[in-house]
Amino acid sequence: MGRSGVPDPTDDTPAPRRGRPGYDQATVLRRAIELFNRQGYEGTSMTDLAKELGLTKSAIYHHIESREQLLAAALDEALDELTAVVDAAVEPSASGTADSRLRTLVHESVRILVDHLPAVTLLLRVRGNSPVELVALERRRLLDEKLSNLVTAAVAEGAVRTDITPELISRLLFGMVNSLIEWYRPDGPVPQQAIAQAITAMAFEGIAVTQPE
Amino acid sequence: MGRSGVPDPTDDTPAPRRGRPGYDQATVLRRAIELFNRQGYEGTSMTDLAKELGLTKSAIYHHIESREQLLAAALDEALDELTAVVDAAVEPSASGTADSRLRTLVHESVRILVDHLPAVTLLLRVRGNSPVELVALERRRLLDEKLSNLVTAAVAEGAVRTDITPELISRLLFGMVNSLIEWYRPDGPVPQQAIAQAITAMAFEGIAVTQPE
Repeated sequence: MGRSGVPDPTDDTPAPRRGRPGYDQATVLRRAIELFNRQGYEGTSMTDLAKELGLTKSAIYHHIESREQLLAAALDEALDELTAVVDAAVEPSASGTADSRLRTLVHESVRILVDHLPAVTLLLRVRGNSPVELVALERRRLLDEKLSNLVTAAVAEGAVRTDITPELISRLLFGMVNSLIEWYRPDGPVPQQAIAQAITAMAFEGIAVTQPE
Repeated sequence: MGRSGVPDPTDDTPAPRRGRPGYDQATVLRRAIELFNRQGYEGTSMTDLAKELGLTKSAIYHHIESREQLLAAALDEALDELTAVVDAAVEPSASGTADSRLRTLVHESVRILVDHLPAVTLLLRVRGNSPVELVALERRRLLDEKLSNLVTAAVAEGAVRTDITPELISRLLFGMVNSLIEWYRPDGPVPQQAIAQAITAMAFEGIAVTQPE
């Protein structure tokens, strides 16, 4: 990043932590999300953000309108991605069975959690303590409703068991997917594709060996 | 609770929010955990705790040694319960197959999550920002290791599939269990026993219908 303050998109070395670095908005957002995840959104002040970015308390407002604006941008990043894959799976013109679309959606969800891990982590820890958070929770609720409807459609096809309600299946299935944020590390031993396959296999076939080996 | 400050265990009406209520330690802990879960541990000051308990800033130290001490007590509550059921499942003298002990452990874990929901919720959101949190994370890691070993034993019995590593099965299985804290409500429509059965059925048999109905 140049000393002029003009972002240089080809330069991804860390900005120096003195003077008045010319952060681009994407970098500010990324660093803010990391800080929110590390010490909690409620536990992060503008002073903390300024320190994290190597800015003075007066310079921070040149880069950040408010904590809430950063939180909203972070939650939108996660929600926009998740909404896109959920809508693709449930839209009336979607091709394939509900069962196959549900399986694809599990894979796509894992991809988004991995690719947007910090933003999704922040989203999944939102409590609803501000208007921004309440809007995010409402968008999550709509996603949950669509997921549950997709499971209901898979049940109607005869592809999914009927002794557990579609709502509960949906919650447990995506609870398993979402647990990724607790233990997935980008440099860990299990590649993303293997995790998506493991989750799909566990959720659809179960872990019990049912046929003699 | 009496005005003398001596706790009356038969009286569970809320203490008055003025003067200097004589909270017992269990009540202080319960209210503190609720506040930590609502606004985050990092976002909760001694002033917040005093306000929540209707105490002055000077009186609060009569009831609370420090925020850390409350956090430690809360995390111990969750960890002691979880450790007890995990140890019962993995101790060398435990009877039954590893497979049956794993199924029992899923049920027992659901029971503890439901019975100690606020404390477990706090535990599962711990980030490791203090010595108290690091100790809790280390205890969680030991539990994860025992869970993974139990799955390994069930694989060795031929009861559990071999194409997913025991570590990953363990993480996903208890990820599904732990997702309870995100959506379980004590007054919700699904009783605890039904949730434990649904999780066990999903995890072991899967949700796919494999036989013609």
